[in-house]
Amino acid sequence: QDSNAPAFGKGLFNLVGKDSTFSMKIGFRMQILGIANWEEGNNNDLVDPETRFMIRRSRLKFEGFAYSPKLRYKVELGLSNRDISGASEFTSNAPRYILDAVAKWNFYENFDLWVGQTKLPGNLERVVSSANLQMVDRSLLNSRFNLDRDIGIQLRHQIDVSDNFVIREKFAISQGEGRNITSANLGGYQYTSRLELLPFGTFKGDYQGGDLQREPSPKLMIGATYDFNQDAVKNRSNQGSYMTIDDESGFYSTNISTFFLDAMFKYNGFSFMGEYAHRDAKDPLAKNSDGTLTGDKVQVGSGLNLQTGYLFKKNWEVSGRYTNITLDQDITGKAPENQYTLGLSKYIAGHKLKVQSDISYLSLDAGKDELMFRLQMDIHF
Amino acid sequence: QDSNAPAFGKGLFNLVGKDSTFSMKIGFRMQILGIANWEEGNNNDLVDPETRFMIRRSRLKFEGFAYSPKLRYKVELGLSNRDISGASEFTSNAPRYILDAVAKWNFYENFDLWVGQTKLPGNLERVVSSANLQMVDRSLLNSRFNLDRDIGIQLRHQIDVSDNFVIREKFAISQGEGRNITSANLGGYQYTSRLELLPFGTFKGDYQGGDLQREPSPKLMIGATYDFNQDAVKNRSNQGSYMTIDDESGFYSTNISTFFLDAMFKYNGFSFMGEYAHRDAKDPLAKNSDGTLTGDKVQVGSGLNLQTGYLFKKNWEVSGRYTNITLDQDITGKAPENQYTLGLSKYIAGHKLKVQSDISYLSLDAGKDELMFRLQMDIHF
Amino acid sequence: QDSNAPAFGKGLFNLVGKDSTFSMKIGFRMQILGIANWEEGNNNDLVDPETRFMIRRSRLKFEGFAYSPKLRYKVELGLSNRDISGASEFTSNAPRYILDAVAKWNFYENFDLWVGQTKLPGNLERVVSSANLQMVDRSLLNSRFNLDRDIGIQLRHQIDVSDNFVIREKFAISQGEGRNITSANLGGYQYTSRLELLPFGTFKGDYQGGDLQREPSPKLMIGATYDFNQDAVKNRSNQGSYMTIDDESGFYSTNISTFFLDAMFKYNGFSFMGEYAHRDAKDPLAKNSDGTLTGDKVQVGSGLNLQTGYLFKKNWEVSGRYTNITLDQDITGKAPENQYTLGLSKYIAGHKLKVQSDISYLSLDAGKDELMFRLQMDIHF
Repeated sequence: QDSNAPAFGKGLFNLVGKDSTFSMKIGFRMQILGIANWEEGNNNDLVDPETRFMIRRSRLKFEGFAYSPKLRYKVELGLSNRDISGASEFTSNAPRYILDAVAKWNFYENFDLWVGQTKLPGNLERVVSSANLQMVDRSLLNSRFNLDRDIGIQLRHQIDVSDNFVIREKFAISQGEGRNITSANLGGYQYTSRLELLPFGTFKGDYQGGDLQREPSPKLMIGATYDFNQDAVKNRSNQGSYMTIDDESGFYSTNISTFFLDAMFKYNGFSFMGEYAHRDAKDPLAKNSDGTLTGDKVQVGSGLNLQTGYLFKKNWEVSGRYTNITLDQDITGKAPENQYTLGLSKYIAGHKLKVQSDISYLSLDAGKDELMFRLQMDIHF
Repeated sequence: QDSNAPAFGKGLFNLVGKDSTFSMKIGFRMQILGIANWEEGNNNDLVDPETRFMIRRSRLKFEGFAYSPKLRYKVELGLSNRDISGASEFTSNAPRYILDAVAKWNFYENFDLWVGQTKLPGNLERVVSSANLQMVDRSLLNSRFNLDRDIGIQLRHQIDVSDNFVIREKFAISQGEGRNITSANLGGYQYTSRLELLPFGTFKGDYQGGDLQREPSPKLMIGATYDFNQDAVKNRSNQGSYMTIDDESGFYSTNISTFFLDAMFKYNGFSFMGEYAHRDAKDPLAKNSDGTLTGDKVQVGSGLNLQTGYLFKKNWEVSGRYTNITLDQDITGKAPENQYTLGLSKYIAGHKLKVQSDISYLSLDAGKDELMFRLQMDIHF
Repeated sequence: QDSNAPAFGKGLFNLVGKDSTFSMKIGFRMQILGIANWEEGNNNDLVDPETRFMIRRSRLKFEGFAYSPKLRYKVELGLSNRDISGASEFTSNAPRYILDAVAKWNFYENFDLWVGQTKLPGNLERVVSSANLQMVDRSLLNSRFNLDRDIGIQLRHQIDVSDNFVIREKFAISQGEGRNITSANLGGYQYTSRLELLPFGTFKGDYQGGDLQREPSPKLMIGATYDFNQDAVKNRSNQGSYMTIDDESGFYSTNISTFFLDAMFKYNGFSFMGEYAHRDAKDPLAKNSDGTLTGDKVQVGSGLNLQTGYLFKKNWEVSGRYTNITLDQDITGKAPENQYTLGLSKYIAGHKLKVQSDISYLSLDAGKDELMFRLQMDIHF
C-alpha cells in the first residue's frame, strides 16, 4: 500500500479542502507514566514507596484554517482521566473534555484576534506544550502559579524591529475562572499582558523543551507577563479552589495579580529555561460577609525555576532543574520548598517518540522530605 | 499539496469504502458564545449585567451507509460541557456523550425503519439542527415543550401525492425518559406521530433556519405532532426532572400528551417559522402513595413561537421572534412569559461559518423583566 | 467518487505514514441493544416484564505501528454511557473514557513487551472482543470472575514447537485495581500468568465467537491462567467494590488468587468454548483494624461456562450456553445460580454487521428465577 498519510510525528492527517477552502492537521498523542515516591521516615531514611501508573495525557488535536487562510483555529480534546477531570457545578457537572477551542483571525497585518478557550499568554513553561517538555512534567512553580487556560479574547501582535530582533505582544481579556466554565462569570474579568523579546531572531524551539534543533547560533527569548484578575474568586487567580463564604452561599473576591519573568536560551544542544513568578492579592485572607475569616487564603508568594540541559549524541539528553517555592508564610502558613531534579531523556524521534525519566528530591523546610522517580513514554502522531 | 478533502463545510472526510461497501461523511463543528444578561432593578432600570462565555456546542458527526445503501446510519457525539452534561444514576453516572446513534433501514419502497437513539419527530424547531439555526439559539417554547432525543424505533414513510405535493408520516415508539438512559424503563413507553404536508414540494430548507437558498418560488411545510407518553415519570414528558415519591423510593407516573402544530415558509430570502405547543397530563399533580402532594407538577400549558427573517444582499439577515409561554398557572404556579427577540446574522459561508447576534427582552407577568444580548460564532467543517 | 477507504468492516482508515514511518487502522463500532426481563411471580408464573434499550457499546479503535514496525500500539476509546461509567475518587472523578492505551515492543525474536493499559491475559471469554461475541453478551462467569483491564507491563512470547503446535506464554504485572486509576496503588501488585496450547496450529478464530471461518480441519486452543493479586483491596481481585474499613478511612487487603482453565474448539461451522474459574482469598472476610467484620467479603468460589454453536448456511447460527456460578455460600451468603441460554445470530457481514438474539433462563437456588430476552444489532466499521 502506498503512503496516504504524513510521516510519523507530522499528524495523522493533513487535510486540504477542495479549492483550498480549509486545512486541518489532526494529531493524536499519549503518555504512559510510572511514578515511585518515597517519604522521609523517622530516622531520615526514605520509606513507604508509593507507586502509581497511569495514562498521564492523551489528546486529539485539530488545527488549520477555515474558509480563509486568515482564519485559523485550534481544537484540542483530552482523553485521559487526568486530562478531563475537574467537573464541578460550574462546568455543568460534566468532564472538561475540551482543552482548546479557539478561532484566530489575522484581521490586519501582524495583528491577530483570538476568540475562544485556550492557554493565556502566561509563563513560558506553561505555554510549552506538554508534548514538548524537557522533563517528565512541568515544575512546581508552574503548578503553583500558572494561568492555564481560560475563555475570552486575545490580541496578538509582532514587531520586526530589525532583520533579527523581534518583539511579540500579547493581550488577553478572559473570564478569569479557568477552562470549561458554563455558569455565569463570578467576580470580574482577568487581564493578561505579555511582552516577548527575541534579540537574535525567532527560533523553532522558543516554546519547546531542550535544544533538539541544536541551534548553530545562540537564540534567546525573554518574556514578561503581568496578569490582573479583578475580583477573583479562586485562591490561585483563575486556578485553585473557589473561596466560598457564608456557608457556601457566596464567594469571597479580591484582586489578584501575578507577575512572571522568564527566559529561554538555546545553543548547540545546550538549553536553559528560567522563570520567576510572583503572586499578590489586595486582601489575601478570605472573609465572610460578617468579616470573620473563612480559612481560605490566596496563595501569595514567589517561585523560581531554573532548568538546563544538554543534548548529547544520539539524542540522549541530561537535564537539571532547581525549583524554589516561597509562599508568604504568615498568610498561607506554608513553609518554603526546594526541589532538585535530574532528568534523562532519550529522544527516539524527537519529542514525538521519547522515553523520559527524572528523579526529584523535594526538601521541605517544614515536614518530611520526599524522593520521586518517574519514567514516561510519549508517542505523538 | 493537492486537495484531499471536501470543500469547507462539506465534511472533513467523505469516505467511500472499497467496492462501495460503505460511506461515511465525518463532520466537526463548534460554537463560541458570549452572553450578557441584565435584570430589571427596583426603579425599572436594567442592572447587574451577568456575563458568561462558553464553547456552547461542539460536535463530531458521522453519517452514511453501511454494507448496503439501504442501511444508513448517523452518529453524533457531543464534546462541549453543555453537550455532555446531564449525568445521573439513570445514565450510569456517566456524561451523555452520544447524541445520536441510529441505524436507518429502507426495508421497502418509501418505508424506513429507524432503530436507536435520535431526535423524536417532535416540533420543527427542535429537529432543525443546532448547526442551522436562524438565531443564536432556539426559543423558550422549545426549551419548555420539546421532545428532544430518545431511544427506540421509528417508522418513516413518504407519499408523493402529485409531482409536487408530498406528505411525510413519522411514527416513533421510545422509552420515554430522554437520551442515554442505561437503567430499566420507568413507567410506560412514549408514542409519537407526526404528519407533514409539503404542498409546493420538498425543499432543502424545510429543516433549516433562514432562507439561505433564496427559494425562487414559495415553499411551505406544515406539520403536526401528537405525542403520548404513557405513565411518564418526568415533569416534561421525556424531559425535565424525575418526579420522585415517598422519600425518593419511587416515582410518580401519569399519562402526558404533547401536541405541536408548526409551519415553515420560505420565499426569495424571506422565511417564517411558527409553532404552537400544548402539553396536558392525566393528573399533573404528583402524589406520594398516601395521596399527599410531592410538590412536583407536570408542566402543563401552551406555547406559541413566531419567527421571521429576511436575508439581505451579502448574506446579512435580520430576524425577529415572538414567544409566549402560558403554563397552567393554577397547577404550575407559573405566570405567563413573553419574549421579544431581534436577531442579526452574517452568513460568511452559509450556516458553516457565521456570526450571529440577538437581543431578547423577556417580559414576565410576575417577576423581574430581563434583557439578554448574545453573540456567537459558528464554524462547521 | 472513487473508493478512498477500506472495505466495510476493515476500518474507516488504513493509514500508512510517509516512508512507512507509521501505520494506523481506525475503526468505529456501535451496538444497539434491547432487553426484556421477567421475574418469577408468587404463582411460579413470569411477571413484571422490565425493559430497557440502550447504546450498549460504542468504540473508537486505533492500532498500528509507530516509527518502527517493531513498536506497535493500540488505543481504544469508549463512547457509550456503559463504556465510560465507573468514575470514582480513584479515577479523578472522571469518566473512564480510555479502554486501551498500550505500546507493544517486539524487542527480541518472539518476545514482546507491552506497556500501558489493556486487557490482562485472563479468561478466554473476556479477551474475545465484545465486537466478536457469539451471543449478545458474555456469560455470568465472566461478570463474576474476569480480570478485565489493568495498567502495567506484560511479557508475551510464542514457541513454535512444530510446524503446527504452538505454545504462547503471557505474563503481566499490573497495578491490580482495574482500569483508569489515577491515584496511588493500594495494596500490592497483581501478577498474571497464562499458558496457551494450540496443538493443531494457530487459527484466526482463537479469540472469536462462533466458527465464521468454517475451519476445514479441527482447531483447538487450551489455556490456563493463574492470577495472584497481592494485598488486593477490591472484593473481586482488581474488579468489584473497594473493601473499606474503619469508617472509610482505610482499606482491607488480602491476597486473592484466581485460576482459569479454558478451551476453544472450531471445526466446520461448529464451535465450542468452555471455561472453569476459581477464586480464592487468604482471608475473604474483610475486617476493621480492631478485628470486627466490615460486612465486605471477597467473592470466592467457582464458575463453569460451556458454550457451543453451529453456523448454518447463509450465516445463521444457533448457539447454546450453560453457566453455573457456585460461590462459597458460607462466606458470601450467595446461593448457586444456573443459567441456560439459547442464542440465534444472523451474521450479515460476519461480526461486522450482525443481529443477535438470545433468551436466558436464570435458575436461583434461593430467590426468584428470571427470564431474559435480548436483541442486539452490531455495526462495526
